Amino acid sequence: MFSIRLKQLTPYVPGEQPQDRRYIKLNTNENPYPPSPRMQTFLAAADMDLLRRYPDPRFTDLCSAIAKREGVRPDQVFAGNGSDEVLSFAFFAFFDGRNGPLLFPEHTYSFYPVYCDFYGIPFQRVPLKPDFTIDLKDYARIESSSGVIYPNPNAPTGILTPRPDIRGFLSSYATDRVVIIDEAYIEFGGESAVMLTAEFPNLLVVKTLSKTWALAGMRLGFAVGQPDLIQALYTVKDSFNSYPVNALTQKLGVLAMEDEVYYQETTQKIIRTRDSFARQLVRLGWKVMPSSANFLFAGKPGVSGKAVYDELKSRGILVRFFNVDGLTDFVRITIGTDRQMQRLTAELESMKP
Amino acid sequence: MFSIRLKQLTPYVPGEQPQDRRYIKLNTNENPYPPSPRMQTFLAAADMDLLRRYPDPRFTDLCSAIAKREGVRPDQVFAGNGSDEVLSFAFFAFFDGRNGPLLFPEHTYSFYPVYCDFYGIPFQRVPLKPDFTIDLKDYARIESSSGVIYPNPNAPTGILTPRPDIRGFLSSYATDRVVIIDEAYIEFGGESAVMLTAEFPNLLVVKTLSKTWALAGMRLGFAVGQPDLIQALYTVKDSFNSYPVNALTQKLGVLAMEDEVYYQETTQKIIRTRDSFARQLVRLGWKVMPSSANFLFAGKPGVSGKAVYDELKSRGILVRFFNVDGLTDFVRITIGTDRQMQRLTAELESMKP
Repeated sequence: MFSIRLKQLTPYVPGEQPQDRRYIKLNTNENPYPPSPRMQTFLAAADMDLLRRYPDPRFTDLCSAIAKREGVRPDQVFAGNGSDEVLSFAFFAFFDGRNGPLLFPEHTYSFYPVYCDFYGIPFQRVPLKPDFTIDLKDYARIESSSGVIYPNPNAPTGILTPRPDIRGFLSSYATDRVVIIDEAYIEFGGESAVMLTAEFPNLLVVKTLSKTWALAGMRLGFAVGQPDLIQALYTVKDSFNSYPVNALTQKLGVLAMEDEVYYQETTQKIIRTRDSFARQLVRLGWKVMPSSANFLFAGKPGVSGKAVYDELKSRGILVRFFNVDGLTDFVRITIGTDRQMQRLTAELESMKP
Repeated sequence: MFSIRLKQLTPYVPGEQPQDRRYIKLNTNENPYPPSPRMQTFLAAADMDLLRRYPDPRFTDLCSAIAKREGVRPDQVFAGNGSDEVLSFAFFAFFDGRNGPLLFPEHTYSFYPVYCDFYGIPFQRVPLKPDFTIDLKDYARIESSSGVIYPNPNAPTGILTPRPDIRGFLSSYATDRVVIIDEAYIEFGGESAVMLTAEFPNLLVVKTLSKTWALAGMRLGFAVGQPDLIQALYTVKDSFNSYPVNALTQKLGVLAMEDEVYYQETTQKIIRTRDSFARQLVRLGWKVMPSSANFLFAGKPGVSGKAVYDELKSRGILVRFFNVDGLTDFVRITIGTDRQMQRLTAELESMKP
């Protein structure tokens, strides 16, 4: 009864989402602060025609608001049902096996190989440096490839690749192969590559409203690139699902883009909390990777990541452990409120050495 | 820069969605009545944590509410971002070319061949009878096929296949090939095949909340079938996008399933309006197909569907015209409120013969 395709899938496993809410949830990189208060006001008076009628399949107002915020034109913006869907459409549109494998980092967002299986795209993992950084010169040296995708900052390390390195890489890479930079966490300390899309027509930058904009529950992501890349994503969308972004989410996305002041404030708070929590971890003897994201990837020397995860879970705090060679000494800890991180610090202090 | 796959796509073209709202919109089969009033109440007090946190990737409460309404168990239900996404996942999961083409009616929902192109699935269109009905015996006679999909009632004709015919077909068809019945419009006068899923483990029934439940803007559809079919859909989802149904839509879906009384009332109103408008069309000399849906497929003898569409558009009323051989004598008219249909009747009366 099942297709051959189905049998080849190994699905992505999302972080635990316990529905009972008993935990301090520091495992899925959600924002600890609510979205812009304008959203509650909007929902309280929402026109029921928004529910009743099909949404705008071209996301007109939303793309305009995103374009304005990102400093590009609306025809350089595509939106989707979370950046996961945007990425999925991009894998379909831009990558096949013709020119070699798709390249991505050895340790990175674990959905990339899943998309490759889904569409039958060959891929090659490029090792990280011993300090877990990405060196794009390693990608440039690989003789043939169909394209490149990587998150900046990378996941789950949180480590940023500086923009000059990205420009250098794009200058050396084949201009007819698409490079996707997945900037889910860029607002927490990095410089976006969006401005480079003017210079490099093969660059697509993808962002999500799940982290900075605290809208994980509403599912909204977008891509910025030259119009022919964007048009390709619309073609894929219209061959899969004409209306992937519901009407309320389109409206909330506009409100998110327009309330820059509020989000600057919550983002700066998270950055301050992260840096101060990182100092606590160092004080406790932990190894902490330098993070430009809303999480820390860190490990306690001599203790496995799994042991830390289990111990914290038993104490009512969820963090994320990756059972993957090379990452088992670490856990990924989402930055919550100051109070949550103080509670976590206290638990870590009281853990046996 | 583009994949070979991309070049093979011919995207679906959705009905016009003018954003200026100047028209009486009878072109996309939206419900003319608002969704349950419980939804406005819910949204007015919505917890902002629903926006901030990732939604339940297993749709637990939603699937329970759907299961209760449909008289099945929750593990027999899958939900998606509109029935279009549910269908897309189902095409991936169940159909490939191994055993022959996928069968669907010559005239039907025009997204089916688009999904086939998207996933590279061979298909065969089975002609309708001269009276535009579907005869499932025609499908049973085709020597080899990978599966069957068709809407009941069919689109854009609105004609119903009676349930005994479906049971007869399923009894004669290969039990290891999936049959999908797309019941987008079933509540407007048909008998659902959901109860047949207990008897036929290869049957998947798909429904949408866009029509009966007036939630086109929120994007919600579901599938009912035996657990192994449902599990396959979850596997596809988790290889494409872990969280396709946003948190508010999951909640609104529960409210929709629970307010049966309200929806019985609006559905019965639409049925009455449809039947009375059909009589008006017959009085005006139109040919009207017998509809069990929330639309009529009808034509004015001697006048092309395109001419009717153009004339009505110029008068501020949108209907849908299909520029497809065999359908060009007709337009598809969504059933609106009594007042909207009276206005349309008046316009039709005043049109030149």
